[in-house]
Amino acid sequence: MYFASDNAGPAHPKVMEALIAANEGYAMGYGADPIMEEVRAQVRTVFEAPEAAVFLIINGTAANSVLLGTMAQPWQTIFCSDCAHIHEDECNAPEFYTGAKLTLVPSPDGKMTPDGLRSKILAEENRGVHGPQRGPLSITQVTEKGTIYPLDELRALTATAQEFGMKTHLDGARFANALAALDCSPAEMSWKLGVDTVSFGGTKNGALGVEACVIFDPDLAWEFELRRKRGGHLLSKHRYLSAQMQAYLADGLWLELADAANARCAQLAAGLRSFSAARIMFEPQANIIFFEMPRREHKRMLDAGAVYYVMNGDPDNGDADELLIGRLVCDWSITSEQVSQFLDLLHG
Amino acid sequence: MYFASDNAGPAHPKVMEALIAANEGYAMGYGADPIMEEVRAQVRTVFEAPEAAVFLIINGTAANSVLLGTMAQPWQTIFCSDCAHIHEDECNAPEFYTGAKLTLVPSPDGKMTPDGLRSKILAEENRGVHGPQRGPLSITQVTEKGTIYPLDELRALTATAQEFGMKTHLDGARFANALAALDCSPAEMSWKLGVDTVSFGGTKNGALGVEACVIFDPDLAWEFELRRKRGGHLLSKHRYLSAQMQAYLADGLWLELADAANARCAQLAAGLRSFSAARIMFEPQANIIFFEMPRREHKRMLDAGAVYYVMNGDPDNGDADELLIGRLVCDWSITSEQVSQFLDLLHG
Amino acid sequence: MYFASDNAGPAHPKVMEALIAANEGYAMGYGADPIMEEVRAQVRTVFEAPEAAVFLIINGTAANSVLLGTMAQPWQTIFCSDCAHIHEDECNAPEFYTGAKLTLVPSPDGKMTPDGLRSKILAEENRGVHGPQRGPLSITQVTEKGTIYPLDELRALTATAQEFGMKTHLDGARFANALAALDCSPAEMSWKLGVDTVSFGGTKNGALGVEACVIFDPDLAWEFELRRKRGGHLLSKHRYLSAQMQAYLADGLWLELADAANARCAQLAAGLRSFSAARIMFEPQANIIFFEMPRREHKRMLDAGAVYYVMNGDPDNGDADELLIGRLVCDWSITSEQVSQFLDLLHG
Amino acid sequence: MYFASDNAGPAHPKVMEALIAANEGYAMGYGADPIMEEVRAQVRTVFEAPEAAVFLIINGTAANSVLLGTMAQPWQTIFCSDCAHIHEDECNAPEFYTGAKLTLVPSPDGKMTPDGLRSKILAEENRGVHGPQRGPLSITQVTEKGTIYPLDELRALTATAQEFGMKTHLDGARFANALAALDCSPAEMSWKLGVDTVSFGGTKNGALGVEACVIFDPDLAWEFELRRKRGGHLLSKHRYLSAQMQAYLADGLWLELADAANARCAQLAAGLRSFSAARIMFEPQANIIFFEMPRREHKRMLDAGAVYYVMNGDPDNGDADELLIGRLVCDWSITSEQVSQFLDLLHG
Repeated sequence: MYFASDNAGPAHPKVMEALIAANEGYAMGYGADPIMEEVRAQVRTVFEAPEAAVFLIINGTAANSVLLGTMAQPWQTIFCSDCAHIHEDECNAPEFYTGAKLTLVPSPDGKMTPDGLRSKILAEENRGVHGPQRGPLSITQVTEKGTIYPLDELRALTATAQEFGMKTHLDGARFANALAALDCSPAEMSWKLGVDTVSFGGTKNGALGVEACVIFDPDLAWEFELRRKRGGHLLSKHRYLSAQMQAYLADGLWLELADAANARCAQLAAGLRSFSAARIMFEPQANIIFFEMPRREHKRMLDAGAVYYVMNGDPDNGDADELLIGRLVCDWSITSEQVSQFLDLLHG
Repeated sequence: MYFASDNAGPAHPKVMEALIAANEGYAMGYGADPIMEEVRAQVRTVFEAPEAAVFLIINGTAANSVLLGTMAQPWQTIFCSDCAHIHEDECNAPEFYTGAKLTLVPSPDGKMTPDGLRSKILAEENRGVHGPQRGPLSITQVTEKGTIYPLDELRALTATAQEFGMKTHLDGARFANALAALDCSPAEMSWKLGVDTVSFGGTKNGALGVEACVIFDPDLAWEFELRRKRGGHLLSKHRYLSAQMQAYLADGLWLELADAANARCAQLAAGLRSFSAARIMFEPQANIIFFEMPRREHKRMLDAGAVYYVMNGDPDNGDADELLIGRLVCDWSITSEQVSQFLDLLHG
Repeated sequence: MYFASDNAGPAHPKVMEALIAANEGYAMGYGADPIMEEVRAQVRTVFEAPEAAVFLIINGTAANSVLLGTMAQPWQTIFCSDCAHIHEDECNAPEFYTGAKLTLVPSPDGKMTPDGLRSKILAEENRGVHGPQRGPLSITQVTEKGTIYPLDELRALTATAQEFGMKTHLDGARFANALAALDCSPAEMSWKLGVDTVSFGGTKNGALGVEACVIFDPDLAWEFELRRKRGGHLLSKHRYLSAQMQAYLADGLWLELADAANARCAQLAAGLRSFSAARIMFEPQANIIFFEMPRREHKRMLDAGAVYYVMNGDPDNGDADELLIGRLVCDWSITSEQVSQFLDLLHG
Repeated sequence: MYFASDNAGPAHPKVMEALIAANEGYAMGYGADPIMEEVRAQVRTVFEAPEAAVFLIINGTAANSVLLGTMAQPWQTIFCSDCAHIHEDECNAPEFYTGAKLTLVPSPDGKMTPDGLRSKILAEENRGVHGPQRGPLSITQVTEKGTIYPLDELRALTATAQEFGMKTHLDGARFANALAALDCSPAEMSWKLGVDTVSFGGTKNGALGVEACVIFDPDLAWEFELRRKRGGHLLSKHRYLSAQMQAYLADGLWLELADAANARCAQLAAGLRSFSAARIMFEPQANIIFFEMPRREHKRMLDAGAVYYVMNGDPDNGDADELLIGRLVCDWSITSEQVSQFLDLLHG
């Protein structure tokens, strides 16, 4: 009953096998390994983007930060959701890599609206040289609340950005989960909508630790490489990154795993809905559920061995009736039995 | 015949086995995995430093940069060899993480001298608020030229630093190779000599990609953690770093591998010495050899399948008699047979 | 009828005279001039802070940025009003000098509330190493809306900061105007309330360009000096900064000028209140008025030669009835006659 | 007998008069003052560069740093003399504003040679993504040793830079002194030779504190403005900068003052040459002299009231015969009588 995070589960066996296979003999370092050649081709095929620049990096914070460093100037502000990972969970890494500021767009359910974005853009940029200048937009898909932008909503955001001459970055730490839910193609969820760069996650969905940075304008490739190196993020034994991504993309494993995680989450959501003391806060569309439940129920579940985060209070101390927010995350490795076990426990 | 770099060989099977074993079930992320507990204890035991703060990071550039960030202020200058990795091979990452400058101490054979260091310290710091201030010293052991500081030379450098109130960082990307050569203890080569922090390498000596950052003053631990996170260097699925270091340190594997690499290098050096057209440039004390040889001989070797770097010219084009510098590096995986094959070819 | 800004008026004759007097003979540079000795004593006397470190700098952006650089760590967030100058008008200078983030506390009338501050502090700091850490609080007095925190409101804010171990910076670009309005002592409006550092403005109140940075903890002095120099803000011919501040502080000139500016603003406010088409938005307590008025009236005034900013629209184009916000600022040099001329014109 | 620095003398009366004249009535801030319009035209005329972008800033460190920030990328290295002001006297400000590294070209007499520069360029840039990349060249004219590059030597340096695709910055803190000595035009000493940007000094030659940043490629203007603002270097009451530069450039005052300073220096050099115990170290071509003299003679002069820096030792303590280096600097305000007084004392 481990629903704490999708970074707590194991890597998929096929990814481990690829890692082991890659550990044969000698290979040039720093991205010149032959597997990286293959990964580059895979990513380009997956995105239907034969010119795209493709780089691997160890985690989502690094992917976001180096990409944004390549897109933003230090006198600009980056527009993002007020619950974006780049704002809340990266300890100023985006600021470190860009020198820029973040402007937070209200997103109660995790999603920015075009009007909310526009209003922030207009508010920022009316002070000439005195204020921060308009930098890129960063959209998180799947959002931090577990919701998903449908394609038309994404398009409305990128169109708003384009109207002001701004580029768009997609934080796709859970890109696969969104794609599985929307049933569209990677191209349809990225460059066909006006997305310029993607942090394409692997870590949360079956890898040990690898993300692809996809840049649709290949002219930015060299700058990205220099920024990655300057951040200490170029791996010498790079083949171990390549092998993970190779296996992740081969034969659609990545979508298969995301489908599984989403399905377990749907099963979980259905069970929660039928438990009267719990209330799901946002429609769970991928692999994350936020729900409210009295402290006493959280305590009961946690004491019985369920593992998940209670976001806004101590489950052990306080008014037993107080509603506390819990977060449940399913990764690819959660089984239907584990979900049933949790739900059986919940319904007592 | 692969002598290009010690980052081109495979990871040791025991490291891979540990990785596979670590891939079971769920584990808390971000360094809270149980293996990290064990690694912390291992490193403290190895260094006889029960209070030391211990952190893992993906590569040497990151280890050096985050450690120096924790030690240097942005208005200071860091003293290092003029061929130090932090100067030549990290694309300004140390400057990025510290904001500081580097002051280069001449080191023709890779080693700084106390007099050379003192002279640079005195030259920098005589301008009050106008010039950069004295920051830490960073020593590379094994040096970039394959030489090793004996303990008394190390001590003379740290003593010079201490005389001016400066701390000392040890870039130990090849710490194991130096230790194997000097036959002393890790404590004797670090804090007992006045070293304050160590980048303790694993990547070049049998790991996939892991370095330990060892900080003997535990008061700096939290700042290090924040700087590591802000650099995007905190891994979510941290157990895969932990497992590598655990296996690397278990049962003295790390020293065994370094011994092997050093021994292959000694075998190679002996063979080179008996080849009259080649001249070894610095006494090879660990696993790296720099040697001069006419272009024609380099070309002959490379055409025959030897893999190594020629540092200062194109082996294929130019005066056949011109002496060019070659670099040979042995990692743990090089066999005695491979060395013999190279030497047989050399001696024709 | 020049109400555009308090940086548009001339310097006071006594300041100019001091500048001329300072231009005699030779003087050591970089703050070692004898006038600076005197200024240091003046500021310490004014603030009843005999140990305070005192430095001069050319403008408010630099004063704020270097002071905050000395107070904040790059992994922290600085708490400030959502209309603070450091957020809106300094083009990321505070981020540049600190590496930190700004957390914006809602302040509809320019003033943060203790509850609003507390709520932001609690929201930021609950994510361990992942989120930004708590950095200093920066309070603007007079606020950007022309309002003033009474002493008890200031105290409630600094007390909230102290409760969380945070230091407080006071952006006093209009410190004199606030003091004149509150009729208290500089010490009462700063360190006696728990303020740790002050940007003490001179530029907007009769100087050519000088601010004092006052640091009540003298242990931070040397770091400030290094940060000022590293920002390019240490003047070689420093006596010209010193002379301005000397004259500004001599014989209470600074308070006299602020009194005059505040009085003109009160006169202006009284006249506006009796004009039915205008509505004052925040109680003007110092030398700034924000007011709403139909576009047609703004246009009439501006066409007739009044100079001030219309903040949220083009006074020349659009619905004549639409209410637009105007900002009127009085500096020390505005005369009662100029105000009367404006009001006569307004009342037509 | 004040030869300590050319930042220790007063501002020229005409500059002060212009400042006083500028202090009339209201003026738009932040560079929108009418005098700045005039200054822009003056500088463009002086440099025969009708398209050049022209900005004012308070001192040389800021001018150099913001200009280099506009020219260099954070993964590059800037090539400069090993005694350049940007290296020795700016407390890492260039590193702060650029993120880049400095590569020091040996310059025993203050001057880089094309071969020395080429050798450093080639040494830096042979490591692909691993090492710092080639950034701009920064040349100091007059050098820190008081020597001057003739035009053909300047041209050889900029040509070397251009050969590698590098831009050139000229640190002209003493531009006027060099021009006066070389008897050429500003254009001939800048863009006609391939110089891309100039820090055009005023402070050391009769102003209170102002430098012009001249950028011959106007496309960089907006980025410069944003970087200046972000550094806290945009003055609100900008007219006081404008007025200084206006008077400085009017009627050739700047060249007249530099001529005077150079002439006093020549007088001083002639007198030193006839004093057998002193030895001039570099041919003084502008307004600075470095000379060696026994400690006893330095002590005698300083005790008698001469003011200048002894660079490498305490004049009061040590072997009386030891040769110590003294530095004499003449600013525009030094009179022939003051020089004679010094020389009479010397010859005693």
